[in-house]
Amino acid sequence: MQRLNSQVVLRRRPSEIFERDDLEVVVSPVPKLEENCFLVRVDQISIDPAMRGWMSPVRSYIDPVAIGSVMRAFGGGTVIDSKNEAYPIGTRLTGLFGLQEFCISNGLCEGWKVRYVGEAFSFGAALGPLGLPGLTAYFGLFDVARPRASDVLVVSAAAGAVGSAVVQLGLLAGCHVVAIAGGAEKCDWVRSLGAHDVIDYKSDDFRSQLKNCTPKGVDIYFDNVGGEILENTLKRINRGARIALCGGISQYNSRNAVGPSSYLNILGQRATMQGFIYFDYEQLFDAAEGRLQSWYRQGKLRHREQSFEGLTRASEAIDSVLSGKNHGKLLLSVVEKQ
Amino acid sequence: MQRLNSQVVLRRRPSEIFERDDLEVVVSPVPKLEENCFLVRVDQISIDPAMRGWMSPVRSYIDPVAIGSVMRAFGGGTVIDSKNEAYPIGTRLTGLFGLQEFCISNGLCEGWKVRYVGEAFSFGAALGPLGLPGLTAYFGLFDVARPRASDVLVVSAAAGAVGSAVVQLGLLAGCHVVAIAGGAEKCDWVRSLGAHDVIDYKSDDFRSQLKNCTPKGVDIYFDNVGGEILENTLKRINRGARIALCGGISQYNSRNAVGPSSYLNILGQRATMQGFIYFDYEQLFDAAEGRLQSWYRQGKLRHREQSFEGLTRASEAIDSVLSGKNHGKLLLSVVEKQ
Repeated sequence: MQRLNSQVVLRRRPSEIFERDDLEVVVSPVPKLEENCFLVRVDQISIDPAMRGWMSPVRSYIDPVAIGSVMRAFGGGTVIDSKNEAYPIGTRLTGLFGLQEFCISNGLCEGWKVRYVGEAFSFGAALGPLGLPGLTAYFGLFDVARPRASDVLVVSAAAGAVGSAVVQLGLLAGCHVVAIAGGAEKCDWVRSLGAHDVIDYKSDDFRSQLKNCTPKGVDIYFDNVGGEILENTLKRINRGARIALCGGISQYNSRNAVGPSSYLNILGQRATMQGFIYFDYEQLFDAAEGRLQSWYRQGKLRHREQSFEGLTRASEAIDSVLSGKNHGKLLLSVVEKQ
Repeated sequence: MQRLNSQVVLRRRPSEIFERDDLEVVVSPVPKLEENCFLVRVDQISIDPAMRGWMSPVRSYIDPVAIGSVMRAFGGGTVIDSKNEAYPIGTRLTGLFGLQEFCISNGLCEGWKVRYVGEAFSFGAALGPLGLPGLTAYFGLFDVARPRASDVLVVSAAAGAVGSAVVQLGLLAGCHVVAIAGGAEKCDWVRSLGAHDVIDYKSDDFRSQLKNCTPKGVDIYFDNVGGEILENTLKRINRGARIALCGGISQYNSRNAVGPSSYLNILGQRATMQGFIYFDYEQLFDAAEGRLQSWYRQGKLRHREQSFEGLTRASEAIDSVLSGKNHGKLLLSVVEKQ
């Protein structure tokens, strides 16, 4: 009997706000394995803000997902059939498996290498602080922002998968960490990670709090959100500040994107705003992953995760991450618990 | 009889648009020379867009001009009295002499070294392609934007003192130069400098022209203006593009500054937007000036200038440079021709 594969495909591009029926679940047969290939049962899928960008028609760092194709997503899974000795049955992997139950690979998915997951690590960790979000934080901080001890580091979306890693890596680098998150619960958690100051951007006096928490200005801003937070943080930057541009989640669902009107502070302060993308650092993944795993084992790189169950809840999960409702790394468990 | 000094002082800070009576002319006696000092008769004053920023209350890279103080300005002048052997009578200098007839210095003005002007060079050249605008172009291009041969270089305000130097230095670096200027006359002049493409930003089809002139995208954008031109150029940047943020003249006279809504392209293209300021490079002025002088002598660094006569026309001259009405480097001749 042929195996069937439930897949979440892109039905249409979001016109502005992502709508749940922009995606739909289809079922198709799993093709026969060709030589050199292996079959992955996808166990956990990573739900990332970047997915909104992949639905847009504009090619940026990666091609848009084609209409009717399986929605792009990172996932963690287990090899259940194999014609490739490097990936025997039982091998645990992460990769761009897509929003689906099963994925066939030859070691690449969408051109990107799958990665082995050690037995010591859960898929949640491998997709979180040890995976894309952790590596994004790592390269954004150490390659783009280049912290010096005592630098004042501001990070937005600090309760998110990337932001919470930035908080902790910033502390390891000796920075004074000012974390921005939304709501008391998230702020409490970020505080528990050791951030020196935590600001709730939903509070009425956000601007004065930001000012009070940065009496010596801001040397590094790790931006995940754009909008008002970028605007106000740019007003606080010091000479030679580095703005690591990692995301702009406040803008993703908006037709009328807003630029930072205080961008000329970048000139006055001879600052640098630099964009970067996880995918560019593939050559350095092994070394970085080793460091992240070491900190993780030492308890210096904590994370938390939240899980939705079942592919049918993919749209709901994406909605949640785009609106900031999630608490920690958002995962979709493919097999619904009975 | 004591010598009198006509001075243009900052009467009040511009509320938004610079108004001519934000400045006023006063007359005060020239004090007696102290030891180690010398008296400069200011011959030509450089009128720069940056002056608008110096009138604002916000400290950026340099203190605001204090109310009632002589307006800050670069000038070229001649030593006419001296108690300093390094600066004998007859020495030709440039420096931050201010908007006034006479300036006393000990070798510094507002903390910045005065610079010698060789007999071979006019004050117009020394204040233009061999001075602040030329050095600004030089460091912005070679230190910030770091051109590689065949890079597509877009420069705005290309008929201005900085922009026209960027065009020519970009050509020397082997770039494909796309120059943006306002009006047919300015565009013709920039074309005569050798720019590969010249676009009039006042034309109705500016956007499609920019697109057509950059079929391979944009590797370097040297921005002097901000606003719509920055917005549209950001949409054209290539992977790894460098945006040298030199000025934002479209924003200087505006209360409601506008940020570039397409700034997230900096992320998608892993580009870098970096601000820089002439004053930071003082240690490198000599070397850079030597190269600029050499190109100037070879006819590879052309400029043009326009002159207003008399300190009483200072406000008019500043108005002109802020509204882009000037053609080339704008100078104020202190002594009115009879």
